[in-house]
Amino acid sequence: MDGKSSSNTVGKPIRCRAAIVRKPGEPLVIEEVIVAPPNPREVRIKIICTSLCHSDVTFWKLKHPPAIFPRILGHEAVGVVESVGEGVHEVVEGDTVIPIFLPDCGECTDCLSKKSNLCTKLPFSVSPWMDRDGTSRFTDINGETLYHFLFVSSFSEYTVVDIAHVTKIDPATPANRACLLSCGVSTGVGAAWKTANVETGTTVAIFGLGAIGLAVAEGARLCGAKRIIGVDVNQDKFEIGKKFGVTDFVNSRNCGDKTVSQVIIEMTGGGADYCFECVGLTSLVHEAYASCRKGWGKAVVLGVDQPGAMLTFSSFEVLHSGKSLMGSLFGGLKPKTDIPILIKRYMAKELQLDEFVTHEVDFEDINKAFDLLIGGKSLRCVIWMNK
Amino acid sequence: MDGKSSSNTVGKPIRCRAAIVRKPGEPLVIEEVIVAPPNPREVRIKIICTSLCHSDVTFWKLKHPPAIFPRILGHEAVGVVESVGEGVHEVVEGDTVIPIFLPDCGECTDCLSKKSNLCTKLPFSVSPWMDRDGTSRFTDINGETLYHFLFVSSFSEYTVVDIAHVTKIDPATPANRACLLSCGVSTGVGAAWKTANVETGTTVAIFGLGAIGLAVAEGARLCGAKRIIGVDVNQDKFEIGKKFGVTDFVNSRNCGDKTVSQVIIEMTGGGADYCFECVGLTSLVHEAYASCRKGWGKAVVLGVDQPGAMLTFSSFEVLHSGKSLMGSLFGGLKPKTDIPILIKRYMAKELQLDEFVTHEVDFEDINKAFDLLIGGKSLRCVIWMNK
Ligand SMILES: [Zn+2]
Ligand SMILES: [Zn+2]
Ligand SMILES: [Zn+2]
Ligand SMILES: [Zn+2]
Repeated sequence: MDGKSSSNTVGKPIRCRAAIVRKPGEPLVIEEVIVAPPNPREVRIKIICTSLCHSDVTFWKLKHPPAIFPRILGHEAVGVVESVGEGVHEVVEGDTVIPIFLPDCGECTDCLSKKSNLCTKLPFSVSPWMDRDGTSRFTDINGETLYHFLFVSSFSEYTVVDIAHVTKIDPATPANRACLLSCGVSTGVGAAWKTANVETGTTVAIFGLGAIGLAVAEGARLCGAKRIIGVDVNQDKFEIGKKFGVTDFVNSRNCGDKTVSQVIIEMTGGGADYCFECVGLTSLVHEAYASCRKGWGKAVVLGVDQPGAMLTFSSFEVLHSGKSLMGSLFGGLKPKTDIPILIKRYMAKELQLDEFVTHEVDFEDINKAFDLLIGGKSLRCVIWMNK
Repeated sequence: MDGKSSSNTVGKPIRCRAAIVRKPGEPLVIEEVIVAPPNPREVRIKIICTSLCHSDVTFWKLKHPPAIFPRILGHEAVGVVESVGEGVHEVVEGDTVIPIFLPDCGECTDCLSKKSNLCTKLPFSVSPWMDRDGTSRFTDINGETLYHFLFVSSFSEYTVVDIAHVTKIDPATPANRACLLSCGVSTGVGAAWKTANVETGTTVAIFGLGAIGLAVAEGARLCGAKRIIGVDVNQDKFEIGKKFGVTDFVNSRNCGDKTVSQVIIEMTGGGADYCFECVGLTSLVHEAYASCRKGWGKAVVLGVDQPGAMLTFSSFEVLHSGKSLMGSLFGGLKPKTDIPILIKRYMAKELQLDEFVTHEVDFEDINKAFDLLIGGKSLRCVIWMNK
């Protein structure tokens, strides 16, 4: 379907294919679903391709709330606007767009401020509904409601997304690169660029060289970091890391009597200027904080630990270290402002995205994408809806 | 004694009066002591006046290490250089100087960087010695060693201080104002100015309106904060606070069912842009963090809790709040660069110092200064060595 033919579907439900999780951890099943037309301020998008992120796997496996089934997962994607609801002026039918889990309403204090990317009007949550009215746009062919995921649900040929979650992009961007900017890669690049504001000539340490950690390296490289230290339990990550500017590697299983932070402090003569925790372990947050250069070091938390996990710091250390601790959701990026900038930098061959795509599969093979990510074989596997 | 007559004493021990703590919590005793001449890179200073800070009281009462006796306390002061040791070129006999507990060696990476005030060469500690060679310059008349305090020991007519701990100031500055900049007032003003970098038009919340909290208010006022919320258990602090720009007051004993952070979030429609903890209670650090505006709020820790006190934060909150947590030692100020700036701003009638001095006593009455501070009667009591 393209822009010209969409007039056939405007205002009507669309019947199309979606990959559904009916029970936690069971293979996704591709079924016919009904996608309602967009309500006011919503956009119906024909997904071109989508990529798999760890949060999809987390919510696929999770047996307890906030997990809920049957659900259409998927939140890294790119697509074309099929139709728009009332009051949507920002995009029109045929526009190429990225749906993004983090809202950017353009109206609240946060969205109007350069300093925040945490919309107050539509606060981020893991709700299974559209965020403005708390209903679903998906039903299966038996009329059963299917739940949304992260306001995107891109494992469907068509999806409905609130305009606050839609960023228009240059249609010349290759789809299997653009989709990466929907979540993981942007989070990493943004953490270095926006949250930490890495300065030229500085030293960076990255705990965990998965896709997000490598994206932090890429962001730090773009910011002109002189030295980028990767920390991982898997020595092979050093080779991959080099593509994204990683200059040094610490195998955390291979530090002998020393802690990782002791090793990093020795390597750097006092600690790294910026340390990023990308694994989601509170113990690593402490190592990251300890690995920061006293006087000005910044420790940035990107990973999510188990709900309820606590971070503990010595009051004396916080007071006497001159360090900062900060969190980074979506890398501190403002979706509608910053994603187009990253796209431009990719098109200008500055930002590397190609290297993140290790696998591509057809929609029918979506379960392979899960196997690859869970098995640690892929950084990003792109899933093509209709190749 | 003035510059002209000091040639009599150069290179020789000086016999003068000092207030000595012989046992924890017992009244200070003014005795004759012998002050050795300065070693290389040291300066012997004739103290003009000194003021009492909470750390003096803490180390006066403390029964366990790092407390040690007999000791000469005092670390907020101003004086005149009596003589200098070899290799000191930065000051000469007769210069007016402020001794400061935080070193500024001018040589290490930190001291050469604009981003750090935590000297690597002479790391801050509560050592009872001169920091370069670990010896004392004080003996009593029986030849017993007297311990230093915070590298200053200003409760003595003469003291010896490492040049890294000496900042030269404009001699026109009134002594009973200049001495305040040695520790507490600088710490508060600097925390707003340097550590948090408070922006014009913003909202600030200050937990604890003692001298340091009031100095934070003064710093925030100078930075152009629009709204300054003081939090204290003592309602009277609001009146004092108004002199330093406090616009609103929260009595933390009077919040009913709400926490202080809930009250502040309601007052400000989401939280303060900057929150400063000036009491030294980990529970208040959490309230300060919780009171910060999501998206960009900064929580700054100035107070010291008991050794070993831990700060605990939810990993989810750190990740999803967009807030920063930072410590501030000496307000992030670089002594030799920033103290002369504060002096200039005082002389230009921008920075208010007069209002901090609630009492002045003669050296003989130094124990009154302790009573006043412990009883919550004084903000700063200036002690004149020879009025
Ligand atoms: Zn918003
Ligand atoms: Zn994701
Ligand atoms: Zn130094
Ligand atoms: Zn002090």
